[in-house]
Amino acid sequence: MEKEQVVVGIDIGGTNTVFGFVDRNGKILGEDIINTTFYGEIEVFVAALYEKIMLVKSRLVFDVEILGFGIGAPMGNINKGTIEYAADLPWKGVIHLAEVFHRHTELPVIVTNDANAAAVGEMVYGGAKDMKNFVVITLGTGLGSGFVVDGRLVYGADGFAGEIGHTLIQPSSDRECGCGRKGCLETYVSATGIKRTVLKLLANSLVSSELRAYSFDELDSRRIFEAAKNGDVIALKAFEHTGAMLGFKLADVVATTNPEAIFLFGGLALAKEFIFEPTRESMERNMLSIYKGKVKLLPSELSTQNAAVLGASSLIWSNRE
Amino acid sequence: MEKEQVVVGIDIGGTNTVFGFVDRNGKILGEDIINTTFYGEIEVFVAALYEKIMLVKSRLVFDVEILGFGIGAPMGNINKGTIEYAADLPWKGVIHLAEVFHRHTELPVIVTNDANAAAVGEMVYGGAKDMKNFVVITLGTGLGSGFVVDGRLVYGADGFAGEIGHTLIQPSSDRECGCGRKGCLETYVSATGIKRTVLKLLANSLVSSELRAYSFDELDSRRIFEAAKNGDVIALKAFEHTGAMLGFKLADVVATTNPEAIFLFGGLALAKEFIFEPTRESMERNMLSIYKGKVKLLPSELSTQNAAVLGASSLIWSNRE
Repeated sequence: MEKEQVVVGIDIGGTNTVFGFVDRNGKILGEDIINTTFYGEIEVFVAALYEKIMLVKSRLVFDVEILGFGIGAPMGNINKGTIEYAADLPWKGVIHLAEVFHRHTELPVIVTNDANAAAVGEMVYGGAKDMKNFVVITLGTGLGSGFVVDGRLVYGADGFAGEIGHTLIQPSSDRECGCGRKGCLETYVSATGIKRTVLKLLANSLVSSELRAYSFDELDSRRIFEAAKNGDVIALKAFEHTGAMLGFKLADVVATTNPEAIFLFGGLALAKEFIFEPTRESMERNMLSIYKGKVKLLPSELSTQNAAVLGASSLIWSNRE
Repeated sequence: MEKEQVVVGIDIGGTNTVFGFVDRNGKILGEDIINTTFYGEIEVFVAALYEKIMLVKSRLVFDVEILGFGIGAPMGNINKGTIEYAADLPWKGVIHLAEVFHRHTELPVIVTNDANAAAVGEMVYGGAKDMKNFVVITLGTGLGSGFVVDGRLVYGADGFAGEIGHTLIQPSSDRECGCGRKGCLETYVSATGIKRTVLKLLANSLVSSELRAYSFDELDSRRIFEAAKNGDVIALKAFEHTGAMLGFKLADVVATTNPEAIFLFGGLALAKEFIFEPTRESMERNMLSIYKGKVKLLPSELSTQNAAVLGASSLIWSNRE
């Protein structure tokens, strides 16, 4: 009997690493998870991950043929198969991930950053199926971006294209970024960024707010979303400010690559119109007239739960076509 | 005798329109210039331009066969053959340039923005011959940009990619742009932009400067360059401010498409280190560490007059291959 062809999509996160066996249609035949923080050595991490992948494979209801491994990771570099100076991972400096993987397998291993993987996922399985020019913005702990031009992901000369989370909102900002600078877009526009904005608003204003009950550590974008739904003035203002800054930057993105659509993905995007409306308003207001009303701002059509795995797997699928 | 095949490359600028007869090897067999600002009606402009082209053709030392017209113009749109809402040209709204041209000729007419044309020129004949990922910034009356990704020019979904001259330096700027907004990059960084900065510096400061002798209309980037060479404090400060703002925006450009090099082209770029040094310093200072020291900031290797003409002509040549 012919084996089903699958790709292993792997999403390496600061806390967990998720993987899944993905068929050509984006169906996940089996998945599992390992704890990233548990492995201080990259060699041990990869060995444990590979073993777990093989274990899950052996338990699938039918035999599969693995075509390759697609890996999304913070600061993942497609040219070199490396992860470089990722702040939130246990392994510091330049990590030769593909090389270490190849001690276990001769199959193709493709590494890229998680937002690039999400962009390819959107193109292969999501809302960008019929689009040639679009951008995906991931709003999680940080802000990632993946640019697709003429149907191809933009990697750039060194494989580090699409880091608009680290463009500056203003040179005089006080807000510290994990990258060591101040005022990066992601310090304002991300699940963490909106938390920081809430704290600043709570500090400046005397208006009552249910968000005064939470510590910085307790606060998250879901709680701010809930407060906004209750009409909480601070939460509403925080979404407004966050959207205004995102829209301001997206107007620049439009003037650079003139995409057909921009997709918002990740935790903060789940707040729907609370984040989409002010973003759209600010983007339209700041855009040059030739672009006005032409660029769609859309929610990602990939489910948050397995988008990163699908995106990572699509690196291999799209490479085979 | 067989006629030599040529393409007419045309560069429509805010001040002058330059054209040339370009052979397949990029040799310019004849060229001339008309004053853009002189023609308030697009029909009259095209008629005068076409007549001049035919006049120059009749004077070439041997007979040529024209294969088509490649045109670079601000806000030129390759999909529609239009110029749309160009801030620095005499004709407002949507100008159907290719259509008007076709009243005179049935040959192919291809329109794109002047910076895109310059980028193709740089790739085919200039310093980007061996590069797959680079950006060309044109610093003339306005600021144009052309992005090359994976060896191909980025046009975007509507053919309007590469308008970073109309991204905003800051939302609160007072400086009016020809596009109807305030604070666009080109209101600071362009031959006109630096003039405006000089006037502001002359207004604020009491320091003596040879630039106090010139009216706004008399001033140009060449005069400011001459003053800088003489150690004029105002001129030096103007270049410093201009470079700081350009570098700030180029750091964003790097984070978006991660180019191998950025080429500066046009009148203001002729001021060499007076503009390159503060731009490079500001770009490096504002960049994320993974990019630092990796992106070359280079002068265009094409002569100011020829690059856009060559680039415009290559639109037709590359279309025939």
